[in-house]
Amino acid sequence: MHILIIGAAGMVGRKLTDRLVAQGGLADRTVEKLTLVDVVPPSTPASFSGKVSCVTADLSIPGEAEKLIATRPDLIFHLAAIVSGEAEADFDKGYRINLDGTRYLFDAVRLEGVKAPYKPRLVFTSSIAVFGAPFPEKIDDTFLTAPLTSYGTQKAIGELLLSDYSRRGFFDGIGIRLPTICIRPGKPNKAASGFFSGILREPLAGQEAILPVSEDVRHWHASPRAAVGFLLHAATLDTERMGTRRNISLPGLSATVGEQIEALRRAAGDKAVKLIRRVPDPVIDKIVAGWPRDFKPERALALGFKAESSFDEIIRVHIEDELGGKLA
Amino acid sequence: MHILIIGAAGMVGRKLTDRLVAQGGLADRTVEKLTLVDVVPPSTPASFSGKVSCVTADLSIPGEAEKLIATRPDLIFHLAAIVSGEAEADFDKGYRINLDGTRYLFDAVRLEGVKAPYKPRLVFTSSIAVFGAPFPEKIDDTFLTAPLTSYGTQKAIGELLLSDYSRRGFFDGIGIRLPTICIRPGKPNKAASGFFSGILREPLAGQEAILPVSEDVRHWHASPRAAVGFLLHAATLDTERMGTRRNISLPGLSATVGEQIEALRRAAGDKAVKLIRRVPDPVIDKIVAGWPRDFKPERALALGFKAESSFDEIIRVHIEDELGGKLA
Repeated sequence: MHILIIGAAGMVGRKLTDRLVAQGGLADRTVEKLTLVDVVPPSTPASFSGKVSCVTADLSIPGEAEKLIATRPDLIFHLAAIVSGEAEADFDKGYRINLDGTRYLFDAVRLEGVKAPYKPRLVFTSSIAVFGAPFPEKIDDTFLTAPLTSYGTQKAIGELLLSDYSRRGFFDGIGIRLPTICIRPGKPNKAASGFFSGILREPLAGQEAILPVSEDVRHWHASPRAAVGFLLHAATLDTERMGTRRNISLPGLSATVGEQIEALRRAAGDKAVKLIRRVPDPVIDKIVAGWPRDFKPERALALGFKAESSFDEIIRVHIEDELGGKLA
Repeated sequence: MHILIIGAAGMVGRKLTDRLVAQGGLADRTVEKLTLVDVVPPSTPASFSGKVSCVTADLSIPGEAEKLIATRPDLIFHLAAIVSGEAEADFDKGYRINLDGTRYLFDAVRLEGVKAPYKPRLVFTSSIAVFGAPFPEKIDDTFLTAPLTSYGTQKAIGELLLSDYSRRGFFDGIGIRLPTICIRPGKPNKAASGFFSGILREPLAGQEAILPVSEDVRHWHASPRAAVGFLLHAATLDTERMGTRRNISLPGLSATVGEQIEALRRAAGDKAVKLIRRVPDPVIDKIVAGWPRDFKPERALALGFKAESSFDEIIRVHIEDELGGKLA
């Protein structure tokens, strides 16, 4: 099969690529070709026996999506997005990339199907940012999407388009609302949620980290390894089981910043916890206050999606996958 | 004040214009200018002392919205849309008019505000078609928007944009989900919901009507007079009371087709009821099966929106407003 990954140079895109290369197949089908696309050049995976095509392209430029889709991939992962902080700071860029780019992609698939029958599986990474306060204690599968950021708005619009295009038979779409990915490896990005990872990642590496909100802030998390698991499960599950509602909230772990810090203490001791410096940031505080804290993701659980059940586990995954299995 | 009505040649647009002309003002402000816009030429209202500008324009053509907004109206009613049946039959046209047209309008207001501060009230007519089955017994104010038509999808996207643009301060928006308008005067349009009006309007005028669904179909209704009341109330209420959720389901009347027919019998007798001819239509039946049946519109009621409480009242409104106060 031919798999197209848009946003392949991002953290989740790279991990997804690595997993596909390591597995060599997906649900009994061999991966013969990988097309990796991003606005910055994606790196070619080592030790892949199939064909790899690395493409530098911006989906928000009309015509770019058509070129990618003309190769008729069997499975499309659409992970590309401007993150929340940047989409809030740059209105035009957020709408251009997150809304127009997504719509161009969906339309390219639709129009490819006019030439000759074509109905790929399309996995779209949405976000829990489609929800906005006030919230119930736990957000269930029928709660309204009333985002409080432009990023959340753009993702919610992507979800609506995905549902309608799937209903019309243009592709077989599934939108998955990823929890906040924690612990993100690498350098901080512009996401307002960055500190949730930073307060663990930096101290685990002996570095200082900034905590811009109070310890009682509660949020919804899953590891990068769980995120890749979500994507592969979404790529292979029987979408008939979803009915017409093609967008779902995924399982995750609800925890406070204080609970994150206590798990850090158990994993790396007081000296790690002492590296967290409190620097309250009212802008981040306001954005985060409008974010979900807890979910009741019954549909996703019934469909077989799985996440971590403790922050000790999330930290262990990070140590295994990013730090070679042990702390320095 | 200067009021812009987009979709002014439609049924609701004409009634809204007539009411504004009759009142001459809105919430203690005199209406000095009316700009009436539609894709077909809107008619100039008789006996209006202020200035009237009638414009034939298609908002989905880039640049058209900018020209309208350059006149900086204080209040904008955006009623223009391709109806549900047509948006389902013509995918491109539905998205072009209902999504692109709406976005061009919203962006024109945003960009006008870049030139000099500008923040008009913008009233957007959304629809209960933003909801899709399966439903709870009554749809409350936190139920998800999972539309089952392209029309509903386009309206739901308009709602999301309206909320985000309002949150950003580009305009002071309010999206109102009109119940199905019943009894629509005049000729049937391409809306799949047309028969709900037809089975009353035609028999009240001594004409035969087609009923394509069964009598136990339950739906959510309000009169054209109530619709104009909703629009004027949305134009003048204190939107601060709405918080960040700028889109609301309006009050209406939940009734079955059978209850509609019994109200017709009370108003016009058995001979009127006998004019209803049953011609089951599986296409309409399928669309209508995915539509809401009943609501619990607590927010709208708290904000002071009002609708009819019986089909006898809806029929009386029709007889008063459309038939000169009495049956032929």
